[in-house]
Amino acid sequence: MNAAQDSISAGRLTVDLNADMGEGFGRYRLNDDAMLATVTSASIACGFHAGDPVVMRETVTNASARGVTIGAHPGYPDLVGFGRRDLAVTPSEVEAMVVYQIGALQAVCVAAGTQLRYVKPHGSLYNRAARDAATADAIARAVRSVDSSLMLLGLARSALIEAAERVGIRSVSEAFVDRAYRSDGTLVPRSEPGAVLDGHGAVADRAMRMVETGTVLSIDGSVVRVRAESLCTHGDGPDAVAIVRAVRTRLEQGGVSVVSFARA
Amino acid sequence: MNAAQDSISAGRLTVDLNADMGEGFGRYRLNDDAMLATVTSASIACGFHAGDPVVMRETVTNASARGVTIGAHPGYPDLVGFGRRDLAVTPSEVEAMVVYQIGALQAVCVAAGTQLRYVKPHGSLYNRAARDAATADAIARAVRSVDSSLMLLGLARSALIEAAERVGIRSVSEAFVDRAYRSDGTLVPRSEPGAVLDGHGAVADRAMRMVETGTVLSIDGSVVRVRAESLCTHGDGPDAVAIVRAVRTRLEQGGVSVVSFARA
Amino acid sequence: MNAAQDSISAGRLTVDLNADMGEGFGRYRLNDDAMLATVTSASIACGFHAGDPVVMRETVTNASARGVTIGAHPGYPDLVGFGRRDLAVTPSEVEAMVVYQIGALQAVCVAAGTQLRYVKPHGSLYNRAARDAATADAIARAVRSVDSSLMLLGLARSALIEAAERVGIRSVSEAFVDRAYRSDGTLVPRSEPGAVLDGHGAVADRAMRMVETGTVLSIDGSVVRVRAESLCTHGDGPDAVAIVRAVRTRLEQGGVSVVSFARA
Amino acid sequence: MNAAQDSISAGRLTVDLNADMGEGFGRYRLNDDAMLATVTSASIACGFHAGDPVVMRETVTNASARGVTIGAHPGYPDLVGFGRRDLAVTPSEVEAMVVYQIGALQAVCVAAGTQLRYVKPHGSLYNRAARDAATADAIARAVRSVDSSLMLLGLARSALIEAAERVGIRSVSEAFVDRAYRSDGTLVPRSEPGAVLDGHGAVADRAMRMVETGTVLSIDGSVVRVRAESLCTHGDGPDAVAIVRAVRTRLEQGGVSVVSFARA
Repeated sequence: MNAAQDSISAGRLTVDLNADMGEGFGRYRLNDDAMLATVTSASIACGFHAGDPVVMRETVTNASARGVTIGAHPGYPDLVGFGRRDLAVTPSEVEAMVVYQIGALQAVCVAAGTQLRYVKPHGSLYNRAARDAATADAIARAVRSVDSSLMLLGLARSALIEAAERVGIRSVSEAFVDRAYRSDGTLVPRSEPGAVLDGHGAVADRAMRMVETGTVLSIDGSVVRVRAESLCTHGDGPDAVAIVRAVRTRLEQGGVSVVSFARA
Repeated sequence: MNAAQDSISAGRLTVDLNADMGEGFGRYRLNDDAMLATVTSASIACGFHAGDPVVMRETVTNASARGVTIGAHPGYPDLVGFGRRDLAVTPSEVEAMVVYQIGALQAVCVAAGTQLRYVKPHGSLYNRAARDAATADAIARAVRSVDSSLMLLGLARSALIEAAERVGIRSVSEAFVDRAYRSDGTLVPRSEPGAVLDGHGAVADRAMRMVETGTVLSIDGSVVRVRAESLCTHGDGPDAVAIVRAVRTRLEQGGVSVVSFARA
Repeated sequence: MNAAQDSISAGRLTVDLNADMGEGFGRYRLNDDAMLATVTSASIACGFHAGDPVVMRETVTNASARGVTIGAHPGYPDLVGFGRRDLAVTPSEVEAMVVYQIGALQAVCVAAGTQLRYVKPHGSLYNRAARDAATADAIARAVRSVDSSLMLLGLARSALIEAAERVGIRSVSEAFVDRAYRSDGTLVPRSEPGAVLDGHGAVADRAMRMVETGTVLSIDGSVVRVRAESLCTHGDGPDAVAIVRAVRTRLEQGGVSVVSFARA
Repeated sequence: MNAAQDSISAGRLTVDLNADMGEGFGRYRLNDDAMLATVTSASIACGFHAGDPVVMRETVTNASARGVTIGAHPGYPDLVGFGRRDLAVTPSEVEAMVVYQIGALQAVCVAAGTQLRYVKPHGSLYNRAARDAATADAIARAVRSVDSSLMLLGLARSALIEAAERVGIRSVSEAFVDRAYRSDGTLVPRSEPGAVLDGHGAVADRAMRMVETGTVLSIDGSVVRVRAESLCTHGDGPDAVAIVRAVRTRLEQGGVSVVSFARA
């Protein structure tokens, strides 16, 4: 089962917009809280690749005040590499570190009078979970063992989505509005040319197509199926807020209801 | 209200024995798991002054298998100083870091099929909370905001016990079996001569006296009242297991029921 | 002996302008490299309160390309607190951590084909070293033990300057262009109102007065003597570059030669 | 050129015995300083995978007092994984982190009145440098850029030894006395059965054979050439001191002079 089925059957297109948030640490800040006025879900860093208890509390409080659905965004314990360098962890280590990070953010939510609703792994852990079944299972088991009502947000058609189904928790499939796809449905790595799309209009059109048709044009021009229950937009960068606003406007003008999967 | 009142009224002396556990990190280990066969409560490090997700899971699993009551042992984010160096944190920072650490350990407990029952701050955070009302309140608020059924374990007659009462959560007062007391009821700092007591027999006798009479002899020979709902023994050191065994044997031979405050 | 005596005796007023630089970490950046076009000395973070090996290399390379004198800026091992929270370290720990950090930055300098010239402690370590002789001595001994030709930059009239003299290394006294002074020559703490001055013009005038007269007006209006061989300007903040440019312009228009103490 | 050639030509067999040391952190200790009475070279952790400034100072001081040659033992910034989990760092990041760590330990040596003589990468960085030329070159360049008189200690016949030669610094080849070899001269990974040898006598005999014949029997029984200018023994484990003593005794009884490559 997945989160979008009810809304699709309701006869109207809906989609969630998610962004990574709370990626500061100490004096450092990366994300513009204005983003919270436009997205419907916020994946909040949990202290390993970014985030500290004070930043987490601020971000949870702001997201909650905006009615934005809150997810945990666990990553590798590699602050200097921002969780973006692959680390040869075992599935058992992954399970332990994901349990820890979910628990930390869940407590921050409870203390702030709000609720944690989903989990989305970060950076290299996300990529590893997309392709490696053992890592994906470890994450899905971690989520279920802490709270089986939490949803698991991952790359459409990835090992992580399969793991959620295998383990018996609810999954949410996401697509990337500003990343190039290969014809097999995987993302073009950031290290390759053309990996990241430019232009608000192009990105917004792509988002609309994803929701409307469930497809995306790959970098070599073929049509690729992509389940887009949630659209991932970047939470950082000078242009992040402008891009997500353009995407939301385009979707709403196209008759799409932009709403969190947790409200569907 | 405090945890020992029921048991005292039941006509038989009872006391809890607690020790710090799970103070390893990565390859490092400090505590002997054999300790878990003798204590009734384990205060488990939460990843800031010691502990990592894998160590926490191991320790929680072992404590649970032994029927030992589990507490969170949050500390300063100072691994190299083991949380024993005072750090000029604000009450707001303390509240955020305690919420985070409780949540992390609570999730480890839930994932392991057991339950977190109490919180005891560690090291310099413990000392600061014993004397500073603002820090103590921050900790008590953090505990209540995550789970108001959690108990707060602290130094008898300290600001932390007062804060628990003020905030409305259950407190447990502890005494130290191998630390010298001053006549005002505070501990002789480790940096002073005579701060730590030697000799299993002397320590065991002192423990028995604490439970039986609610008093301890101070370093200058005066009789000091001390509420000992729980007796704190050291979880580390080559002799730790032997000392706590001697204490437990002496208590049981003296007719004291050694049982966790959470079972009373 | 101190660094400014030669230049003063040369009949023309000279002063150094220093700023903290390299205070990023991983993906995070705080300082604008444009600052390096205006200051004459850069105190570069060494990985404890901020800075990582890659950021340090970038900053050293950029400073060297600009002909800016390079100093090590060691701090407490408290990244989340940015080294601004006092930590109860012993003088022996201070000595070890300063040796370590100097060595790390010195190697980065040597590898980049340039030279480390001075050391200035950061944040709470700076403040502790300004008032506590044992900490100040530990820092001065650390500097001397690694390289006795390094200079020690510290608050004018502080314990750190005295320690440099006692230990036999060269000192450089600095004044703060945008911080309020008390009548005893110490800085008004940031937590108090009026601690930080606003207005480029006012700051620039104050800088000129410091160099010209060796005095500053305290927050209560009294004239305080202040030795200003170097003027400290903030390396971060949205306005940092504009302020230091205003200061430099004002000084040069006033006939002051802005040049590093290491070139004097 | 390599370090053993002079001593071989002198007509008498010599070999160095090295062990990893200073692998504690804060309150944690792993190595027995008694090891320093038996080895001739100590590879000392530099604060990334293990080690802190105080532990480093203690270890350097003890090694120096014993006349043991001191090397830097840089690793990945992964304390919880003890630098043993591969991390997808770029060669540029490796170069920066090795420069940093060498500098830190070099300063500790200078402050202690002794001298850093060599560099040996740790754990997964060692393994990566053994097989990947770009990582190996990055390390060799880092060493040369800090101090071209430093030697680079690495696995015999590995990419790291080749990189030292390419970059123009002196190399020292090491063999492992208690690790199984494959017939291609690489080590059997720890995760495979038979990877680590048991028995002091067997290990000592193997060490003697390595020095005498320059060969080792592989796990499948073939004779493998191995250049053993230094023999690596484990610095940790309950048996570490006993094993290295057995090795040294066997070598000396066999007429081998056990002496550091830095003294040859």
